[in-house]
Amino acid sequence: MQALSAKITLADFGEIASQRLPFAQLMGLQLEEITHDFAVMRACYRDEFLRPGGTIAGPVLMGLADAAMYALVLGRVGPVELAVTTSLNINFLRKPAPGDVLARASGLKFGKRLAIGEISMFSAEHPDVIVAHATATYSIPPGDIS
Amino acid sequence: MQALSAKITLADFGEIASQRLPFAQLMGLQLEEITHDFAVMRACYRDEFLRPGGTIAGPVLMGLADAAMYALVLGRVGPVELAVTTSLNINFLRKPAPGDVLARASGLKFGKRLAIGEISMFSAEHPDVIVAHATATYSIPPGDIS
Amino acid sequence: MQALSAKITLADFGEIASQRLPFAQLMGLQLEEITHDFAVMRACYRDEFLRPGGTIAGPVLMGLADAAMYALVLGRVGPVELAVTTSLNINFLRKPAPGDVLARASGLKFGKRLAIGEISMFSAEHPDVIVAHATATYSIPPGDIS
Amino acid sequence: MQALSAKITLADFGEIASQRLPFAQLMGLQLEEITHDFAVMRACYRDEFLRPGGTIAGPVLMGLADAAMYALVLGRVGPVELAVTTSLNINFLRKPAPGDVLARASGLKFGKRLAIGEISMFSAEHPDVIVAHATATYSIPPGDIS
Repeated sequence: MQALSAKITLADFGEIASQRLPFAQLMGLQLEEITHDFAVMRACYRDEFLRPGGTIAGPVLMGLADAAMYALVLGRVGPVELAVTTSLNINFLRKPAPGDVLARASGLKFGKRLAIGEISMFSAEHPDVIVAHATATYSIPPGDIS
Repeated sequence: MQALSAKITLADFGEIASQRLPFAQLMGLQLEEITHDFAVMRACYRDEFLRPGGTIAGPVLMGLADAAMYALVLGRVGPVELAVTTSLNINFLRKPAPGDVLARASGLKFGKRLAIGEISMFSAEHPDVIVAHATATYSIPPGDIS
Repeated sequence: MQALSAKITLADFGEIASQRLPFAQLMGLQLEEITHDFAVMRACYRDEFLRPGGTIAGPVLMGLADAAMYALVLGRVGPVELAVTTSLNINFLRKPAPGDVLARASGLKFGKRLAIGEISMFSAEHPDVIVAHATATYSIPPGDIS
Repeated sequence: MQALSAKITLADFGEIASQRLPFAQLMGLQLEEITHDFAVMRACYRDEFLRPGGTIAGPVLMGLADAAMYALVLGRVGPVELAVTTSLNINFLRKPAPGDVLARASGLKFGKRLAIGEISMFSAEHPDVIVAHATATYSIPPGDIS
């Protein structure tokens, strides 16, 4: 038995991001890994990420979590660019120091119309310390499930 | 009896944002109104906000909601820049067309250490149609409540 | 122009609750008011509601919020008993003293398949003090929207 | 090096529940396992749990999740009965068939004042299929952290 593979590649996502997700570009997001079961997204550090206190701003983490979940959905369903977030809940656990941040998204449920997942975020330097945790629901346009 | 006024002004927030919130700058955020009871934040449209489908990307709305809540907290408590989001929950209700988006934050509870509020978002062109709704909790550093 | 009316009556809901929602019965839930736009549900106090500290337990408030939202959905869509909660987010704001608690649910969005609403809870004795606030999403079975 | 053990025992929790958590009794909740790192709570099936469609009602799952998190907090901090939920977010993933349901809570962060955890729920018969997933925050009264 062969493991299922993702329905998009890193290159596919890179092309979607560069052409259709300018905000992800603005945030320096890069898909690191994509499988049938999880996606890992990186926010490449830039000074604009900082907030008072010298730590990474919450909106960076929220955008990162959302993008990781988007990649996960595309990896499972195929390049359905019109999949949209319907809800996202995030807990900020620790203040990430300046540096790259990574988000790892995995599925809780893939239904016909809704995909629900959880996303753990951590600094590249301390991959074992979760700095934020999110759950998110994506709505998948009809006709796009394969 | 006089109405209570906000503990920061639009100019105060503008200065904090321009010097300490580069990400808010990147997103074109502008505080429009601040009182003891609510805060209205604007995300000035730029093409980078768009996502596939030609509508405003979710991370823009999340960053906007968070900033509106931050302003609300500062308006109530004073310029405690180190106040941080501990959790945020957002429901995306409708897809906002290209254009400025506004967020109106109001308090659900201001405790000694935690401030909880709700944030309604709408397009500048259709102020009566909520496009997203969030609730958020901020943690206020000890010694900063006045 | 006439105001739209609810698609179920208090009596309709009472019958559904007494025959099909035993847990609501166990919690002493009673629908107080139902219109096209909102629903008010009451949890009739019993000593079993108390938790350490002598205040109303969180699960009572969660069950109450969920039931108020369920009534709202049925009032808008008709008696689609199979409508189910897909997510619920609640913030506990204040500790309600022993006594009846009420929840008022109103819609944020009614889509073809998903209904999203917010629910404010308060003690019957202090209707102007919100003790908890929730948002919830219900999934409506296909073919049931009218 | 010895593993850290829980600061309460199954018997301790049983006593707290039987004397101070009547609602947990009403729901047939039983703590199954408690360690420094996780807690497993069982909702012993009764017909009152059912909702239209013949599946377990959402409020049962919410009460179960909350109780599992409460046990986790007490296991980590000691018998601080006044610890209270400040927020809970739940996604309902699948409809559990009639039968016992279990919740497994583990910590995302234990701070001085706030404990944040996640809770996975599953039917006793299908422990590998998550039927609901929650995250919850508890507030720990000052002076009680040990």
